[in-house]
Amino acid sequence: MTDALEVLGDRLSLPVLRELLYGFHRFSDLARLTGASRTLLSTRLKSLEEAGVIVRRQYSEHPVRFEYHLTQAGVDLIPVIVTLKEWGERHTGRQEPKTVFRHSCGAELHPVTTCAECHQQIRLGEFDAADSPVAAGGE
Amino acid sequence: MTDALEVLGDRLSLPVLRELLYGFHRFSDLARLTGASRTLLSTRLKSLEEAGVIVRRQYSEHPVRFEYHLTQAGVDLIPVIVTLKEWGERHTGRQEPKTVFRHSCGAELHPVTTCAECHQQIRLGEFDAADSPVAAGGE
Repeated sequence: MTDALEVLGDRLSLPVLRELLYGFHRFSDLARLTGASRTLLSTRLKSLEEAGVIVRRQYSEHPVRFEYHLTQAGVDLIPVIVTLKEWGERHTGRQEPKTVFRHSCGAELHPVTTCAECHQQIRLGEFDAADSPVAAGGE
Repeated sequence: MTDALEVLGDRLSLPVLRELLYGFHRFSDLARLTGASRTLLSTRLKSLEEAGVIVRRQYSEHPVRFEYHLTQAGVDLIPVIVTLKEWGERHTGRQEPKTVFRHSCGAELHPVTTCAECHQQIRLGEFDAADSPVAAGGE
């Protein structure tokens, strides 16, 4: 878990990944859509590239320009992005207009996190950390 | 999404929430299990309390001591925690022993993020941001 947060644990990384997911790949679009300064965005793109969630592809030689694309690891962040978004909208009071995701089934997208084996929703008290040293303690 | 990251976007908050989830509620346990300094842990517990994901309850008068418990908003972070954990284990190369979650169905817990309406797994290209200004652009 700590590892994932080392990649994602800042205020710009997930917004950048979200815009890439929406199909915006160019530096100027990413700067405009995230509202980040060019310096900060540049730093963040480098760290996301080093983390293996995006790749940089040159699309122009004169001047030299690059596009940014999600890798498979980046695509696999989709569940994290939609789950964080859902929680944020439910539990933080910010009044700014929210982005509505629509699923291909036609419904407004609300993610539910389920068990891959039994397909039931994952709830408190219905799983434990069996092999962790933590499991030996508790209340 | 930014809001959720304001609550969670540091390297200590999710580990603290995870230990609370496992049933550890006391400062000394949280310090030991997360490896955080007492100063940093104290700061983080305050910010989590201000964010409404944990509450502090006094359990001793002499000396004055408190326990920390998840609120409903904290409990609702479970999908975020397990989804981040899954991604981290799949995509970051750290060799440290992982914590294995076991679901009540008996299987090792691997979360799948699904649509609340049609119950299908949420995949790239099968949802879009219909009402966002972003939806007007893209490639």
